Amino acid sequence: MKSKAIFYHAGCPVCISAEQSLLSALDTNRFDVEIVHLGTDKSRLSEAEELGIKSVPALVLDRQVFHINFGASLSDLK
Amino acid sequence: MKSKAIFYHAGCPVCISAEQSLLSALDTNRFDVEIVHLGTDKSRLSEAEELGIKSVPALVLDRQVFHINFGASLSDLK
Repeated sequence: MKSKAIFYHAGCPVCISAEQSLLSALDTNRFDVEIVHLGTDKSRLSEAEELGIKSVPALVLDRQVFHINFGASLSDLK
Repeated sequence: MKSKAIFYHAGCPVCISAEQSLLSALDTNRFDVEIVHLGTDKSRLSEAEELGIKSVPALVLDRQVFHINFGASLSDLK
């Protein structure tokens, strides 16, 4: 069974750069990758907060949060 | 030809967590992964600085730097 990888972003330049490079480097044979745009899908903001995400872009692997560089604070997306 | 992925760390808990999860999620069919411990291999510090690394853990994919969470500042490793 594949693990779940969720990439949270907000369309910012830092986010897109991380998506194109880091996200595309993941092994898709082992990970199902989901991309969530918190700028347009605000219904997912509370889920992101519960996971402990403080800023985007962020990558969550099996509920472990990795903040990648800094694009925007989660509080600025509300 | 494989791309180069270099993971710079300093043995800190945040570094080890990132190494075990994020680094192991990379597609090793497409990336040659090198791990550099800047705490013990200080000769690589200048290289890390030139790449633009400000803190560890950091992952460099094709010279693009991704700071992952925050373990230690590069200046604290000198």
